[in-house]
Amino acid sequence: MPVPIVGVIGGGQLARMMVPQALELGIEIRVLAEAEGSSARLAATEVGDYRDLETVREFARGVDVVTFDHEHVPQEILRALIDDGVAVHPGPHALEFAQDKLAMRRRLTELGAPVPEWAEVRTEAELDAFIAAHGGAAVLKTPRGGYDGHGVRIVRAGSEGADWFGDFDALLVEELVDFRRELAQLVARRPSGEIVAWPLVESVQQNGVCKEVLAPAPSASPRENEVTRAIAEQIASGLDVTGVLAVELFETTDDRVLINELAMRPHNTGHWTMDGARTSQFEQHLRAVLDLPLGDASARDAASVMINILGGPQHEAITDRFAAVMARHPEAKLHTYGKSARPGRKVGHVTVSGGNLDEVAYAARAAAAMFDDEESAE
Amino acid sequence: MPVPIVGVIGGGQLARMMVPQALELGIEIRVLAEAEGSSARLAATEVGDYRDLETVREFARGVDVVTFDHEHVPQEILRALIDDGVAVHPGPHALEFAQDKLAMRRRLTELGAPVPEWAEVRTEAELDAFIAAHGGAAVLKTPRGGYDGHGVRIVRAGSEGADWFGDFDALLVEELVDFRRELAQLVARRPSGEIVAWPLVESVQQNGVCKEVLAPAPSASPRENEVTRAIAEQIASGLDVTGVLAVELFETTDDRVLINELAMRPHNTGHWTMDGARTSQFEQHLRAVLDLPLGDASARDAASVMINILGGPQHEAITDRFAAVMARHPEAKLHTYGKSARPGRKVGHVTVSGGNLDEVAYAARAAAAMFDDEESAE
Repeated sequence: MPVPIVGVIGGGQLARMMVPQALELGIEIRVLAEAEGSSARLAATEVGDYRDLETVREFARGVDVVTFDHEHVPQEILRALIDDGVAVHPGPHALEFAQDKLAMRRRLTELGAPVPEWAEVRTEAELDAFIAAHGGAAVLKTPRGGYDGHGVRIVRAGSEGADWFGDFDALLVEELVDFRRELAQLVARRPSGEIVAWPLVESVQQNGVCKEVLAPAPSASPRENEVTRAIAEQIASGLDVTGVLAVELFETTDDRVLINELAMRPHNTGHWTMDGARTSQFEQHLRAVLDLPLGDASARDAASVMINILGGPQHEAITDRFAAVMARHPEAKLHTYGKSARPGRKVGHVTVSGGNLDEVAYAARAAAAMFDDEESAE
Repeated sequence: MPVPIVGVIGGGQLARMMVPQALELGIEIRVLAEAEGSSARLAATEVGDYRDLETVREFARGVDVVTFDHEHVPQEILRALIDDGVAVHPGPHALEFAQDKLAMRRRLTELGAPVPEWAEVRTEAELDAFIAAHGGAAVLKTPRGGYDGHGVRIVRAGSEGADWFGDFDALLVEELVDFRRELAQLVARRPSGEIVAWPLVESVQQNGVCKEVLAPAPSASPRENEVTRAIAEQIASGLDVTGVLAVELFETTDDRVLINELAMRPHNTGHWTMDGARTSQFEQHLRAVLDLPLGDASARDAASVMINILGGPQHEAITDRFAAVMARHPEAKLHTYGKSARPGRKVGHVTVSGGNLDEVAYAARAAAAMFDDEESAE
């Protein structure tokens, strides 16, 4: 077998973190990056616009499979690649549900998967009606283009959606779920059907952005683990997802789980697997899209805590603080994405694993706090 | 702080395996490779001869520290770099003891470290006398150029060293140690003095080549762990070694440990740390040569077993068999060095970790056996 070649569209941190795994497994990785100096620059063989058909076609020539750092490649380009005979994983028919939240809600409802109550609304009046029927508040989402809290808002009147109604034919409105915490269930699925699940994790959000992940999810009952795994497996098969699928869930105050969002690529809630699972989500994604047998996804330790490091106004590169963090936290695993530290941007993460959740969480939070700007004033 | 740049001389698998760790820590790695298509080709910024002063000087320009994939860079070149103001870790004064076994034995004897009885011999008559005084057999070693069993032979008469006496002024002769097993103690040391030790491991050799490593060394007593750690720390400090130091040891049948060989770089007996320790030897080496604080080197599991994969006459690339191994052994961590599989050459390794040594060893051996040529005849 010649060396398999994986082409990744998008040069962000997800592409970057595939590189080490590809190297160990002897997989050649080629990245189509948006710009010079991307996170994945070490493997960026081309710089160009993923919305330009000829650029993507040219990039896909000679690779064994095309996969993604993000879900924004237009359907018509994905379908043109398929027509060219290129293997694309996940395929356009699956990615559609990650690109369009209305399509996703419709399909999940068809599958009988547990979702919050939702409606497609086209006017302020329709939105008003939904709000009135759901206790006076609801969550309004643009069907496309949302990420990290963008394209999502809580509304109490139809008029609060006025600007978005101008931009989109229809919007998604959902009940405001009364939840205890947020969870994420990641699985990987090969084209030939094999599915492997990581342990269920808890994710803590702040301002719509993932702040930390506790793995496995503390105090999750066997029943909850079973249910979330079954949901993710059902979605992976039902939507024919290939590669990593992340299912973000609400754990409601009345002990149900409801599906919040889907992502069809390695996901922030899976970064802990790099240090905390037998097989990381990046290795597993590469195996899956190449239709290679999947690895053991069990947790290595009783607890792993991953905390995102966000860019702040004070410092330019998180690596500036690595020496100080290493000195105080020899147990911390540090990861940088090689990006400039714009405020609020995810620029790296830190993970600590061990036998005791409280100790691990304490250490991870202490290490992560050393990247906060307040710290630099000491 | 700008991104630190580490220059690695030599493009073998040790340089290759530094690349993933460098990427996660935001360290730029540049490799001076011997030839195109080296193991470390992803990071090879230059191809040239490490014995050529101007080539090495040019390569070293602009890097923050020079380190090594191997110990063969001539002293005069290393010293010229120092004179140019380049940081070199480990330094020439330390590397000398890894390059010249007579110098190493002399220095270890001065330090009072436990070594086999040895002598410097210049003639067959001197060799005969040593053999006669040590039970009729001894181990003869060339002072330079040995690796993987090359430059080492068991002799029973002075005449058996005739060819080597022609090539070297003096040879090293050592008592034939009656040993129960071989051990390796790895430590990392920073220029500023901090030393961190990995657990003691057992290494199993076959035909002079490391076949497998059991980590931590099974049944090692607390006393033995303490002694081997103290020996390695003493050598690291005494020889001013910076970066990873591997001390290969004999555990004698009368319960002593004696130093066999030293290596001043990441070492085959430390490959298990990539999957089995909190901080791998490659990450630790990068931290150490950059004088960054060292990471936690404890074992993640009760047992890890690493087995080398050697090239055989039948198959061209070990990656040809990865799919089959993955299918049967989802727990196995596979590593390829991206090299052509010349018979006997180390081309990759497999590691399995877990709670039970017997199970882990069984799985690792079963996975590794799938790379044997007999297997392909099935």
